[in-house]
Amino acid sequence: MTTEPHRPRIGIIGTGAIGGFYGLMLARAGFDVHFLLRSEFETVAHEGLQVKSAVHGDLHLQPVQAYRSATDMPPCDWLLVGTKSTGNAALGPIIRQVAAPDARVLLLQNGLDVEDQLRAVLPDGLHILGGLCFVCVNRIAPGVVAHQAFGAVSVGYHSGPAGDEASRLAVVEACAALFKAAGIDAPVMANLQQARWQKLVWNVPYNGLSALLQAGTTGLMGDPDSRALIRALMDEVVQGAQACGHTLPADFAQHLLSVTESMSDYKPSMYHDLAEKRPLELEAIYARPLATAQAAGFDMARVRALYQALAFIDRGNRQAREE
Amino acid sequence: MTTEPHRPRIGIIGTGAIGGFYGLMLARAGFDVHFLLRSEFETVAHEGLQVKSAVHGDLHLQPVQAYRSATDMPPCDWLLVGTKSTGNAALGPIIRQVAAPDARVLLLQNGLDVEDQLRAVLPDGLHILGGLCFVCVNRIAPGVVAHQAFGAVSVGYHSGPAGDEASRLAVVEACAALFKAAGIDAPVMANLQQARWQKLVWNVPYNGLSALLQAGTTGLMGDPDSRALIRALMDEVVQGAQACGHTLPADFAQHLLSVTESMSDYKPSMYHDLAEKRPLELEAIYARPLATAQAAGFDMARVRALYQALAFIDRGNRQAREE
Repeated sequence: MTTEPHRPRIGIIGTGAIGGFYGLMLARAGFDVHFLLRSEFETVAHEGLQVKSAVHGDLHLQPVQAYRSATDMPPCDWLLVGTKSTGNAALGPIIRQVAAPDARVLLLQNGLDVEDQLRAVLPDGLHILGGLCFVCVNRIAPGVVAHQAFGAVSVGYHSGPAGDEASRLAVVEACAALFKAAGIDAPVMANLQQARWQKLVWNVPYNGLSALLQAGTTGLMGDPDSRALIRALMDEVVQGAQACGHTLPADFAQHLLSVTESMSDYKPSMYHDLAEKRPLELEAIYARPLATAQAAGFDMARVRALYQALAFIDRGNRQAREE
Repeated sequence: MTTEPHRPRIGIIGTGAIGGFYGLMLARAGFDVHFLLRSEFETVAHEGLQVKSAVHGDLHLQPVQAYRSATDMPPCDWLLVGTKSTGNAALGPIIRQVAAPDARVLLLQNGLDVEDQLRAVLPDGLHILGGLCFVCVNRIAPGVVAHQAFGAVSVGYHSGPAGDEASRLAVVEACAALFKAAGIDAPVMANLQQARWQKLVWNVPYNGLSALLQAGTTGLMGDPDSRALIRALMDEVVQGAQACGHTLPADFAQHLLSVTESMSDYKPSMYHDLAEKRPLELEAIYARPLATAQAAGFDMARVRALYQALAFIDRGNRQAREE
């Protein structure tokens, strides 16, 4: 009789496009993955999870270890959080319920300072990591995720019991190893804050303009005016990052423009959030970066204008939801 | 037998909200007013013109001297042009047809350089004046204009046979006298270009944001973010005007914010243009001011961002019309 090596147990908090895609990929690779769901619980419990991927083909996970409540879930070694950043303050009880004593919590969200919000509601014994997803996915039906392109997750350590650089790196590399075992590229980020700024160079223009102008990347890149606006917003975010001490790669904006042009039409999450009248992730993607750059002496004027327009729309949406 | 003094004959080119309102007011004051119409000709010829005014009550002009074609109109001493500035290049043949030999053409449009476009297609013998309408009107049905508030027309001389300052002033004062005879305040503008910049301080934020955010003035002023954006845009236009050598009154932006807050909800023309899929007046209200300020060394960054967003929308509209 041989002893089976410890197989990490992974909990997925928020089984939307991001949580559903990565959770399914990890489960297919043999990890013990448990999915927390809300409105889609019935569908997923009965019909499983599907990823219709332009890269990997049609994938189907059935049965799914699906839960309607965190109290029913076993303690997990890893938690992947794929919920909207607008709900981070409310995640404390759920994560405390599901986390094993020294669990590692990977926050798969865009924007700035999202880990800080989570840190404030979690015990010190839990590790928090940040993950940046370079992936084009969106939820097209209950339990069904379309995966259009890319897939990498950059991971970095935020805070927790790992005191020195070596133990932090060990945690991050263990996290990267999970993804790599599932065939997903997972670069380790030396500087999480800088990496978050770098990702904002894409998210600030495309997320906001896709919602404001009701358009996907192909439409936005195909029009000379919106393309120039995207470039101007990118340049401002790069300057904002620099004001905060983060030097981004040379010609980074141009690189992102080229990558985006090579993609088939993609509608970022904020487009879908608006279409489905969900709250927009304005705090993490706009308000925090604006305040951080401002504190460092740089006003991102166009980014602020875009933020203000989106905040108007978001407030109108909220009022419509409450009525 | 007494000789009747010459009663000026006035032609209205473009009987929309602006042309309909001022034309009706002038006709009620006893002037000989002739209206050129297109799609609304049948309605107005049979049912007359109506202004439902919060200031003057319900006004009805019936019968109306209405024309479907400029070739049927008598030669006019004054022409009031209330068409969209997007069509100025095509106005030459119409105005040449209707204008008496030394006619005065008053262009009732917002934005910059609109008279220049018209000058290029009119003979030198015609006077061109610019008029800025401080009025809340919109067309609510064929032949029916709602007049919500205000009404003044500021008038200034642009170009034409009046060579010296005294004769230019005489033409402008004759124009003002027409309006005053109809009960309409008509200040004489010493500096047409400066006055156009001054009006842009209102039109740049409210016209564009009403279209982009699908909202009227009350909604835009009631939200802290859109209000801050309006203020930032106003400040930029004031700086743009200053860069071009025009010093606006102190606290002018604050004055406009207060005036706008005192108004009942108003949706500017660009809101209606977008709703009815007409071309947006982006050239006169955004592109020309942006280029003029840029040439004077000032980049109106937020105004440009707003313009680029609107240009994207306008181009989409145009494609939709052509399909």
